[in-house]
Amino acid sequence: MLTSSLYPVTWQGDRAVLIDQTRIPQEYRTVEITNSESMADAIKTMIVRGAPAIGVAAAYGMYLGSQEIITSDRTTFLQQLEEIAQKLRQTRPTAVNLFWAIERQLQTAHHTPGDLTALKTALLETAQTIQREDLATCQAIGDHGLSILPETPEKLTLLTHCNAGALATAGYGTALGVIRSAWRANRLQRVFADETRPRLQGAKLTAWECVQDNIPVTVISDNMAAHCMKQGLIDAVVVGADRITTNGDAANKIGTYSLALVSKAHNVPFFVAAPLSTVDFKLATGEEIPIEERDAQEIYQIGDSRICPEGADYYNPAFDVTPAHLITAIITEKGAVKPEELKQFKV
Amino acid sequence: MLTSSLYPVTWQGDRAVLIDQTRIPQEYRTVEITNSESMADAIKTMIVRGAPAIGVAAAYGMYLGSQEIITSDRTTFLQQLEEIAQKLRQTRPTAVNLFWAIERQLQTAHHTPGDLTALKTALLETAQTIQREDLATCQAIGDHGLSILPETPEKLTLLTHCNAGALATAGYGTALGVIRSAWRANRLQRVFADETRPRLQGAKLTAWECVQDNIPVTVISDNMAAHCMKQGLIDAVVVGADRITTNGDAANKIGTYSLALVSKAHNVPFFVAAPLSTVDFKLATGEEIPIEERDAQEIYQIGDSRICPEGADYYNPAFDVTPAHLITAIITEKGAVKPEELKQFKV
Repeated sequence: MLTSSLYPVTWQGDRAVLIDQTRIPQEYRTVEITNSESMADAIKTMIVRGAPAIGVAAAYGMYLGSQEIITSDRTTFLQQLEEIAQKLRQTRPTAVNLFWAIERQLQTAHHTPGDLTALKTALLETAQTIQREDLATCQAIGDHGLSILPETPEKLTLLTHCNAGALATAGYGTALGVIRSAWRANRLQRVFADETRPRLQGAKLTAWECVQDNIPVTVISDNMAAHCMKQGLIDAVVVGADRITTNGDAANKIGTYSLALVSKAHNVPFFVAAPLSTVDFKLATGEEIPIEERDAQEIYQIGDSRICPEGADYYNPAFDVTPAHLITAIITEKGAVKPEELKQFKV
Repeated sequence: MLTSSLYPVTWQGDRAVLIDQTRIPQEYRTVEITNSESMADAIKTMIVRGAPAIGVAAAYGMYLGSQEIITSDRTTFLQQLEEIAQKLRQTRPTAVNLFWAIERQLQTAHHTPGDLTALKTALLETAQTIQREDLATCQAIGDHGLSILPETPEKLTLLTHCNAGALATAGYGTALGVIRSAWRANRLQRVFADETRPRLQGAKLTAWECVQDNIPVTVISDNMAAHCMKQGLIDAVVVGADRITTNGDAANKIGTYSLALVSKAHNVPFFVAAPLSTVDFKLATGEEIPIEERDAQEIYQIGDSRICPEGADYYNPAFDVTPAHLITAIITEKGAVKPEELKQFKV
């Protein structure tokens, strides 16, 4: 059985239960989400984060929103559902899975015949389908990834950035799914986890996930990756993506582009693992991807400690774009391909 | 007048007064050092840090140590002074200025004729000379640096890593000396300061120094530099060095090598600013430089916040080596030269 036991979103009768990822690793706490407003807040404040997990959460958010609409008129209902969709869309601008999941729910609403009760039931079923599909997708990504990892050494040391793990998906993970598959196939020596400033998802979430699964993990600060590669400590890099464009450019957590450049300089293979729902075929290149800029406080404050003086300025882009030419392969649920071959999956 | 008003080490009659750099920017506090043991501790715990400032501190440490030796026998005195030298050498293994300053003091002791009182006075005078010379050196580095900065745009945006500022030297700074000279010459638009994990010297010290001098400063996390360069935000990079080898390889704070690689990828000039006392002509290449590995707690804890889960491993090299071919020029007090031209300064 390939599934991890970690699920960031679970549906329990009438509510979504989220692992509060802002509390990991200090505390394992769950948050119950019973309405669309709370789900939008949970996405914005990163209680749930990671492109595929945001998609799952938003899908349930759409269902919860549908329950809040008090009308029996289908047109009015669809109008109000669009307003809820818009509220959810505004939470995180970069992750395409968010828009994809919301759009899929809107299509479900538009195409489900019968009364509004049937329509709402269809929304719940679609959310659950999206979740199940994402779990299967991650397992397929893990398997395809395993098949294209370097053949030597037998036991690989893989470096990852941010958290593209079970917590970032319906479960199992994308980049960490590849790493989990390597671990289970006895091909993994150790994971190096970039701590991933400013929000430290590597130090907090990836390290925690690895510890849960007894996978040996070494946490480094982001600026150490090049030094590690120079010493031959890293056999390959595997990262996730928040949005990939038709030409194979990939937006991912800030620092990914830097990591891709230093990987290239050391001839270390650089893999992007992501479901096809991450690919935005409406965009030609990464230049067109909007980059979310987050609050300066993420830079100047860590925990309760203010690290910077008053009077300084800050820049806090949450993502950067890695150009296709720095990517060895993109690992999808339908196979691992060169970035320029991605367009074969356009439907 | 080119001097900054910031001096990390000042001599007051019978004691050294250090700015406690572990408390900046939260609090400006000084620590009085009255014996060699306390000076060794202050260097080790980074109350004073930065290669040239460590040299100045160690020179005073040698003088304080000489006052602790109770003997009137010259041979016994010199033996015991060597023991004090050894204690000071063991504080930080990478900064060559430390060994250079200690050696200079030992030479002073060996070559000063007369009684031990005269010898001790000579040690104090040499420490003060080292300090004065370093200040003059930094000002010369600033001027030479200004002369080779890119000619366009008129107002430059310069990125720096860690703190090679007044706090890291006798005053004025090396990399930040170049930046100060650019500011005074009206050639500076803004400084981008890498926060510099794990110890955050950029966020804490460089940002604080810039704010003190009213220089506009933007703090970014280390992994954002490549993204900033891709957007054309950075005109040149200026960093310090802890040890430079004969071939022009430069050891500096961890993350410098990564920054040099991403600078190269964007054709952004990459300058290393350092006094010639930083050059270790006994070593041929950077491969021979010992790299200090510091405590894991610097990675897993920030302020009072533990950021990593129990059960993870850590790697915490304090420095890395940037190969000469990635360095546009090394800016010394005798002029800015290509790395391969550095050997002309060998005496």
